[in-house]
Amino acid sequence: MEKIRVAICGYGNLGKGVEKGLSKSSDMELVAIFTKRDPNSLTINSNATVVNISEVDKWKDKVDVVIMCGGSATDLPEQVPAMASMFNTVDSFDTHARIPEYIEKVNEVATANNKVSIISIGWDPGLFSLFRLYANSILSSGSTYTFWGKGVSQGHSDAIRRIKGVKNAVQYTIPNPEAISRVRLGECPTLSTREKHTRECFVVAENEEDKTRIEKEIKEMPNYFDEYDTTVNFVSEEVLKSEHNKLPHGGFVIHSGNTGENKHVMEFSLKLDSNPEFTSSVLIAFARANYRLSQNKDYGAKTIFDIPPILLSPDSRNDLIKKYL
Amino acid sequence: MEKIRVAICGYGNLGKGVEKGLSKSSDMELVAIFTKRDPNSLTINSNATVVNISEVDKWKDKVDVVIMCGGSATDLPEQVPAMASMFNTVDSFDTHARIPEYIEKVNEVATANNKVSIISIGWDPGLFSLFRLYANSILSSGSTYTFWGKGVSQGHSDAIRRIKGVKNAVQYTIPNPEAISRVRLGECPTLSTREKHTRECFVVAENEEDKTRIEKEIKEMPNYFDEYDTTVNFVSEEVLKSEHNKLPHGGFVIHSGNTGENKHVMEFSLKLDSNPEFTSSVLIAFARANYRLSQNKDYGAKTIFDIPPILLSPDSRNDLIKKYL
Repeated sequence: MEKIRVAICGYGNLGKGVEKGLSKSSDMELVAIFTKRDPNSLTINSNATVVNISEVDKWKDKVDVVIMCGGSATDLPEQVPAMASMFNTVDSFDTHARIPEYIEKVNEVATANNKVSIISIGWDPGLFSLFRLYANSILSSGSTYTFWGKGVSQGHSDAIRRIKGVKNAVQYTIPNPEAISRVRLGECPTLSTREKHTRECFVVAENEEDKTRIEKEIKEMPNYFDEYDTTVNFVSEEVLKSEHNKLPHGGFVIHSGNTGENKHVMEFSLKLDSNPEFTSSVLIAFARANYRLSQNKDYGAKTIFDIPPILLSPDSRNDLIKKYL
Repeated sequence: MEKIRVAICGYGNLGKGVEKGLSKSSDMELVAIFTKRDPNSLTINSNATVVNISEVDKWKDKVDVVIMCGGSATDLPEQVPAMASMFNTVDSFDTHARIPEYIEKVNEVATANNKVSIISIGWDPGLFSLFRLYANSILSSGSTYTFWGKGVSQGHSDAIRRIKGVKNAVQYTIPNPEAISRVRLGECPTLSTREKHTRECFVVAENEEDKTRIEKEIKEMPNYFDEYDTTVNFVSEEVLKSEHNKLPHGGFVIHSGNTGENKHVMEFSLKLDSNPEFTSSVLIAFARANYRLSQNKDYGAKTIFDIPPILLSPDSRNDLIKKYL
């Protein structure tokens, strides 16, 4: 069987995760890594060819799917519509509020060029979205709760690092176990932002005397921290590097519904040692689905909702029915 | 919008659950209940027409989907292939080992008659199968564990009732919390049947002096109980009827995998007050998908793996993207 030829666009944590994951996917082959940087400056962990993003048009006929590994703030909204004119793509665009305009734009390009673009893949948006859809389709009279963590929020860690006098920082989002218990019991409680999650920060300060001000600035930061109970711990750079150097994450989606007087609780949860490596694994499975959709000429922008689950596995339908049904 | 016209075939616990669920599905309408019994003998909770199963051919053009609510042992293997020549069907066939031959037979009839038959829908097989497929497609290096309960096993309750001297009985399957904890920690333990579940029985005996023999017969019953730690409690008929008159169920599917040195645990669980009513809700969502597949002329026998999740909800794609992605 011919292998699915994959390229990675963007070689950060996520791109490295995809590279690692592909090395274990026997039906796929990593052929190229596309980068904004000077290709010679990249040290990679595979035999892929490193290509500057300005030259990717030369790879049009040599790549079946490009896994887009840039950030959602600026990379993806710009790169995906450009790539979708030449390649099938899978991305993890995660700015929930902007998804409707994003999918419309990508769909236009992909459809016009007979390409498949699967957008917003990962775990949230992604698997959590999928669970929310299944749960609400089955028990429409109910409430769905999403809790994130315990895990490192890159956005919140970055926000702390931008404070004057902060040398480095890691922020953990922690779901409130009491809130989760109440939801699990089917109570359908109304929960404030503060009741759902707490935030714990590990901060390296440049100077001892800044600590009081830094702590105050963190706790009062609008949108990021002001609506949460936040704990700030000052640590040394050594402690940060040795004890907070991983990117764990996860979360819980709980749907509590009923059929008249009978209550039913559905729950989906993830506990991940490495957020980027798990997200990579999801992207790889959907790259496989992408290839198959493209073989069926089912072009355009797709979400996780549109993809028949059978397309995700390398195994045959008969085997999957025997093994998992 | 025209409503989807649904019929129920079989009016037991499951059929009644579907009837109740359809009364809350604004895009669907229950038009008929098909039964093996004398239609006049049925008291139903809706305005549907009750039809003897021998006369269903007269309903061929008046029903969009038939939800098959008979048992897997004898009803479904016989009824579904017969129905699939005239109607689109959804069923909850749950004899795992016989699914491959069953789907082949149903597919032949459905394809020849331009019908859609969705088979083995519910929660296991069904939603649990789906989770096993998603989890293994994403993290192929891992182990998947399924725990059932706490819940009433109808098969085990029936097996106890067949013992001489037993007037009535209810059996609960109980997952072992310690086993679940070990799996959640990502230990990937090898677990014996005995280590995964225990069984608790509530039995009404006809005579006091039979109790010792009944308890022994239950605990030694091959396949059903001999490989489990089983507790037998003798109770009065009154206690059984007042304290064990519900059909709760549920369970946990846990997939513990890794990306190299990083471990990831994925978990899906259900806690159901009423097994038949929840299963009904799943069947109804897939009846909606069935109707849409049939509109697209995508005929044949389908499993839960083949169905794009978007087909399950009555809402528009744009709304679903906004609400759940």
